[in-house]
Amino acid sequence: MSDLQYHVDGELVSAASATVSVRDRGFQYGDAVFETLRVYGGEVFRWEAHADRLAGSTEVLALEHGLSNAELKRRVDETLAANDFADASVKLSITRGVQQGKLTPDPEIDPTVVVQATPLPRGGVEGEPVWDEPATLQTVKTRRIPDEALPSRAKTHNYLNGILARLELRVSDADEAVMLDGDGHLAEGATSNLFFVDGDALCTPSLDGPVLPGITRAAVLDVAEAEEIPVREGAFTPDDLRNAEEAFVTNSTWEVRPVETVDGISVGGGPVTTLLRRVFDARIEREYYRSDVDGDADSADNDGPDT
Amino acid sequence: MSDLQYHVDGELVSAASATVSVRDRGFQYGDAVFETLRVYGGEVFRWEAHADRLAGSTEVLALEHGLSNAELKRRVDETLAANDFADASVKLSITRGVQQGKLTPDPEIDPTVVVQATPLPRGGVEGEPVWDEPATLQTVKTRRIPDEALPSRAKTHNYLNGILARLELRVSDADEAVMLDGDGHLAEGATSNLFFVDGDALCTPSLDGPVLPGITRAAVLDVAEAEEIPVREGAFTPDDLRNAEEAFVTNSTWEVRPVETVDGISVGGGPVTTLLRRVFDARIEREYYRSDVDGDADSADNDGPDT
Repeated sequence: MSDLQYHVDGELVSAASATVSVRDRGFQYGDAVFETLRVYGGEVFRWEAHADRLAGSTEVLALEHGLSNAELKRRVDETLAANDFADASVKLSITRGVQQGKLTPDPEIDPTVVVQATPLPRGGVEGEPVWDEPATLQTVKTRRIPDEALPSRAKTHNYLNGILARLELRVSDADEAVMLDGDGHLAEGATSNLFFVDGDALCTPSLDGPVLPGITRAAVLDVAEAEEIPVREGAFTPDDLRNAEEAFVTNSTWEVRPVETVDGISVGGGPVTTLLRRVFDARIEREYYRSDVDGDADSADNDGPDT
Repeated sequence: MSDLQYHVDGELVSAASATVSVRDRGFQYGDAVFETLRVYGGEVFRWEAHADRLAGSTEVLALEHGLSNAELKRRVDETLAANDFADASVKLSITRGVQQGKLTPDPEIDPTVVVQATPLPRGGVEGEPVWDEPATLQTVKTRRIPDEALPSRAKTHNYLNGILARLELRVSDADEAVMLDGDGHLAEGATSNLFFVDGDALCTPSLDGPVLPGITRAAVLDVAEAEEIPVREGAFTPDDLRNAEEAFVTNSTWEVRPVETVDGISVGGGPVTTLLRRVFDARIEREYYRSDVDGDADSADNDGPDT
């Protein structure tokens, strides 16, 4: 921590002195957007997809920060270089900055941009997964915020909804909360997207519900398509997940993480999860570390580097 | 601004150097609670009621900060004294502080406490209202977050829901957004509680809906009871508000602010609004400035100082 470097407002600073004003709207209201980026071999995994989603988040908040994607990427890369990180997790945040003190935002914005990097060993073919063991899931009472109140496609610093969900896990052994929408259908985990296998099909809650369009979620769906695994995106119930043959959760940190139990009921991984993990890992290996490994022969022609 | 003093983490600091770590959960997730306090003649208006609501907010978030109400009050008073403020608005925030970097909160908390003060002339009997003119209201599409996703009795730094509502006003002349619940009933303004007069009765959305239990809202209901004005707390529609004989909005800053229009339809103040304002102002005059003024004779026996 002592010599860790963050990037705040255009400059590299030691993590210990990386601060924002208490008047910053990011602090006052969570009026800020962010992306969590995974870095493999010094390169950001699917940067373009993250930049697109970030642009969507800023659009929802009418947060016109005026910085190009290239400039944001430059700050991320500068942070990685300053810390000499090859495999890392990076949080890139943009706030609406300090304004006049009223809730209504001014159109004129002097944004605060913060880049925080943490070393994170790669999982993948020759590495170790970040998670120690498969996930244990628990459905919780806290419902996902409906899109009509705060659109789920915006990834923002308003994260209390997920925190309340995680707090409910204090009375259980579970380590990820399954959140339902207002109608009782599966939405997502507090920090992950949900997948399960029913018969031949890979199932995941559709983005029509209050579900963050996860970058790893999309990468897994790409793999499923390449592997000709049928996919069903739709509205599902907690019972569909509890009774599934296999289940896993995804996010940029966990990548593909098998689910051991749902509400105490054994689910576990299986051949579909194993295949998806293997191909996902092989793609990362090939795209970011330039090494040839088995496991993704079918998609060699239809899935180039992520640009 | 140059010599304005804030209180951060137990110490007085200049506003310009009042900062929090970018790793603070208040910044990362809006994982923080707050109160906006009105100060009259050097005394906090209804401190006990604010302290109670703050305790409710921390309970919802399981944010056990370990600070007594007396210690929080001491920091507020120290901030007021340092700035030599008699009439002011104060924002008191408590965050979950810096933790390990995961979304799930640790039970052990080293909270960050921030007190920001701004001079604010009193309205009231001899003063000028804070607002320049009556409010113009506009119902918006952004719905209030339902209690099952984030309980409305918790006043937190997750304020994007209200910000999205206020952003919708950019295409209108209105200055406060009327937010509806998921069923289309009136909930509240982005930063205010709603009141209107229908026949003989003073009406306001009940706290059964996603409505913040406003301190000024409660103070106005006290006045209505003392003045024997019938009160109806319930579920109302936007048409009830548009067709009202009088309407006003309340919060600690605006106090009682008449409504001129709702969705472009003229509503305006009237005798009930005027009476409530006059008695509200007289109570503040008597309780916080120790001067006798007309207008609250009926309640002299049943409404002592706010303790």
